[in-house]
Amino acid sequence: MKWTKEARYRTYESMTLAEQKKLELSVSASPWRQHYHIQPMYGLLNDPNGFVWYNGRYYLFYQWFPFGAVHGMKHWFQTESADLVNWENKGVAIKPDYSFESHGIYSGSGIVHNNLLYLFYTANKRDEEWNRLASQCLVIMDKTGRMTKQATPIIKSQPEGYTEHFRDPKVWREKDNFYMVVGGQREDLTGCVLLYQSHDLKQWSWQGEVKTKERNFGFMWECPDYFELQNHGILLFSPQGIHSKGDSFQNIYQSGAFVGKPLNIANGHFDHCDFQEIDAGFDFYAPQTTVSPDGRRLLVGWMGLPDIEYPTDSEGWAHCLTLPRELSIEGNVLYQKPIRELKEKRKNEVSAKLELSDSVENLGTLSGNSFEMICEVEIGSAQRAGLKLRVGEGEETLLYLDHGVKKVVLDRTKTGTPFAQEYGTIRQKHYQKNKVRFQIFIDISSIEVFVNDGEIVFTSRLFPKIESQGIQFFAEKGSAKIEAIQWKYE
Amino acid sequence: MKWTKEARYRTYESMTLAEQKKLELSVSASPWRQHYHIQPMYGLLNDPNGFVWYNGRYYLFYQWFPFGAVHGMKHWFQTESADLVNWENKGVAIKPDYSFESHGIYSGSGIVHNNLLYLFYTANKRDEEWNRLASQCLVIMDKTGRMTKQATPIIKSQPEGYTEHFRDPKVWREKDNFYMVVGGQREDLTGCVLLYQSHDLKQWSWQGEVKTKERNFGFMWECPDYFELQNHGILLFSPQGIHSKGDSFQNIYQSGAFVGKPLNIANGHFDHCDFQEIDAGFDFYAPQTTVSPDGRRLLVGWMGLPDIEYPTDSEGWAHCLTLPRELSIEGNVLYQKPIRELKEKRKNEVSAKLELSDSVENLGTLSGNSFEMICEVEIGSAQRAGLKLRVGEGEETLLYLDHGVKKVVLDRTKTGTPFAQEYGTIRQKHYQKNKVRFQIFIDISSIEVFVNDGEIVFTSRLFPKIESQGIQFFAEKGSAKIEAIQWKYE
Repeated sequence: MKWTKEARYRTYESMTLAEQKKLELSVSASPWRQHYHIQPMYGLLNDPNGFVWYNGRYYLFYQWFPFGAVHGMKHWFQTESADLVNWENKGVAIKPDYSFESHGIYSGSGIVHNNLLYLFYTANKRDEEWNRLASQCLVIMDKTGRMTKQATPIIKSQPEGYTEHFRDPKVWREKDNFYMVVGGQREDLTGCVLLYQSHDLKQWSWQGEVKTKERNFGFMWECPDYFELQNHGILLFSPQGIHSKGDSFQNIYQSGAFVGKPLNIANGHFDHCDFQEIDAGFDFYAPQTTVSPDGRRLLVGWMGLPDIEYPTDSEGWAHCLTLPRELSIEGNVLYQKPIRELKEKRKNEVSAKLELSDSVENLGTLSGNSFEMICEVEIGSAQRAGLKLRVGEGEETLLYLDHGVKKVVLDRTKTGTPFAQEYGTIRQKHYQKNKVRFQIFIDISSIEVFVNDGEIVFTSRLFPKIESQGIQFFAEKGSAKIEAIQWKYE
Repeated sequence: MKWTKEARYRTYESMTLAEQKKLELSVSASPWRQHYHIQPMYGLLNDPNGFVWYNGRYYLFYQWFPFGAVHGMKHWFQTESADLVNWENKGVAIKPDYSFESHGIYSGSGIVHNNLLYLFYTANKRDEEWNRLASQCLVIMDKTGRMTKQATPIIKSQPEGYTEHFRDPKVWREKDNFYMVVGGQREDLTGCVLLYQSHDLKQWSWQGEVKTKERNFGFMWECPDYFELQNHGILLFSPQGIHSKGDSFQNIYQSGAFVGKPLNIANGHFDHCDFQEIDAGFDFYAPQTTVSPDGRRLLVGWMGLPDIEYPTDSEGWAHCLTLPRELSIEGNVLYQKPIRELKEKRKNEVSAKLELSDSVENLGTLSGNSFEMICEVEIGSAQRAGLKLRVGEGEETLLYLDHGVKKVVLDRTKTGTPFAQEYGTIRQKHYQKNKVRFQIFIDISSIEVFVNDGEIVFTSRLFPKIESQGIQFFAEKGSAKIEAIQWKYE
């Protein structure tokens, strides 16, 4: 299929039933459809948007191009859940209607005010010379689900001194004021975050930049999200153009946070520590947070990256969202734990306790392609010890401790159908103590590993054969102790 | 909406999701959607097709134009049922693929042979001057539901001496041979039935006409169906161009049967009684029969007629099928009884027993817009006695005995939204004995009345308000006894 401009810039409503059926058939033949992650019916999913608790349910929208696994006319697709575990597809929530949004409804956020859900998004337009025009817009949803879109943008364009890379509004409330951060780019092509203020969510005034200590940190900061947690101010964003450095910044684009003192909202000054990458895996971008009714700060990310080809692209669909995670701060480090609601999926428990000495153990009781597993690896004299997951003919995904360098390693070199190999096939992070706890979520084509209760997280897509379901434990050149509990998902 | 040729001759696959949504919204707002009859999701339903027991289920297809309530590009829509009561929509089964069927997949029938379902249909094509070209075609379905369409027609055109009005193949087996009747029109513009024979269901040879005693009986015979029942030969068909006569042939087009001796298949000679109309109601056409696994001859008809405007047309949908009926012969009369499977719907029984004397009784316990009712009316000295159904503000549908002329009368003069009034608003038939039994099926916008165990049947659409649910019993100028049992459907 040739993705001409005409083919990419169509609204979902113009899809014919023949096109729909073809996509459905193609997707239904995919061996890589997830069992318990949010994924598109067909087409391409990217950033999570408008994640919010409203009217007794969680709303979680995502960027969606319906016609195939490319980036084109973006819509907001709506999902809902009462429990953060079981999500219901609700169809397209926001689609291009007006001229100012003729080339896509881009990312944004939601906030509840006066019993209404205010959804802020970036309207993307291209003029005849294909110049981009970006504005920030508002649609208001009521409890019946009716959407009332503002007929003009609430912020018509970027401020002077900034380029048209002006997107991804995130709104929060502080006392009687509302604030918005928007991802931006200065005219010198460095990334930054722009700050707006409003009394009513409709009239917005520019406050200047969020003044961070990083004046030259990539060319664009996407998807900013500011919130406070345990008396810290946290600015989450997805910078583009950061060079890799040691084990960090290995992916094409990054996402992470400045953790600091609460933002000085009067002058935009933000006093913070160095940028910390939020995920150590291969496929993570554009996270967004919200607050649960009981006050937890929850995060969902896109389990994918722009400008990378994925094995499902040829099947007419791409990507999924991560599991929701609960954030916390320890020291100045942002921790992510899987939400406690996921425990409701724990049935069919099996466990194992092993002492390994330069050996590989294959326990028949532990296997699968859709499960949660908690595994503690205590490395003794071994040089390497850990797990092989999704083991099958010529396939394995390794998660282990490398004693010599004291690193946790996720190795997808032999994981299955290869992709994005130009960005390497190993991700690793330092660990401290010789006993490391892994909480692992495997789905048909993904892995999420929470190391030491969320100090490090590895989030990655994997594309092994569906029958590659083996789990092995190993210790090389010495001994190690491993304990594991597994809950297979039905 | 303007129904240009271009708008009428599109395949379902070319429907956009926006068009689909608009139709769905329009149909969902209709007050006349049926509760327990087969009806289209949207668009126009007409003839039942391919009614057959296969692979442990009943298959029942129907003619479908998806885009609105007009006749245009016809598809076969597929429904399935294990019990003849609960039907499942299965989507489009046959759509135009080849040039010879470029203007519609017209009516036909099914027969099971060697564990395969052979479906015969008429391919309709228009050339550039809009001349019609009709051929008979075959698609074979296997037990997995896969359809294999023959790439060329099995009968390329009508025989010499006949016009292009050549359609609606019905196939049956007799010993080692297969036979097909096709509706036809002689070049002198009189209707007839053409007979074909085959050994393998693929190669067909013309045998001449079915030689009936009616040489000049309307201009076209549609939907022929030949079968044998209780040692009689029965040729069911839908003649067009029959003038009304007494109480008969009141509708725009007719359907009925010649009941006779078994067809002499060697020479096509068919010795039969006069044509008998199969239904005395307002809305019935194009019936088709099949045989159940236990040997019953079952019939389903289209509860509608061509060339008539219906109140739902403006809602983007039209028509439904009748309930399935079991046929039998008493004397030389074709009886139709509701299939016994419908008794499974009998819950919530209420009954009444009344002696009326020039009065109207309104029993609160009996009411509804979706029910079955058995009612015996014994007319005494009354001039008229019977029922008023779907009674509401200014609305009523009458079913009564007219003692003076000894006729059963169905009167929809005040039934609700009027339509087809140019064909009259009363239908009536003679009865013999003064005690008459009615078995009545009311759905949201229809009535089917089986009189005296199926000797007479009245099938009609009704378009009253949904809240017109009253039932009244009446006797005028004298006395009558009425007993009724009602089962309201949930």
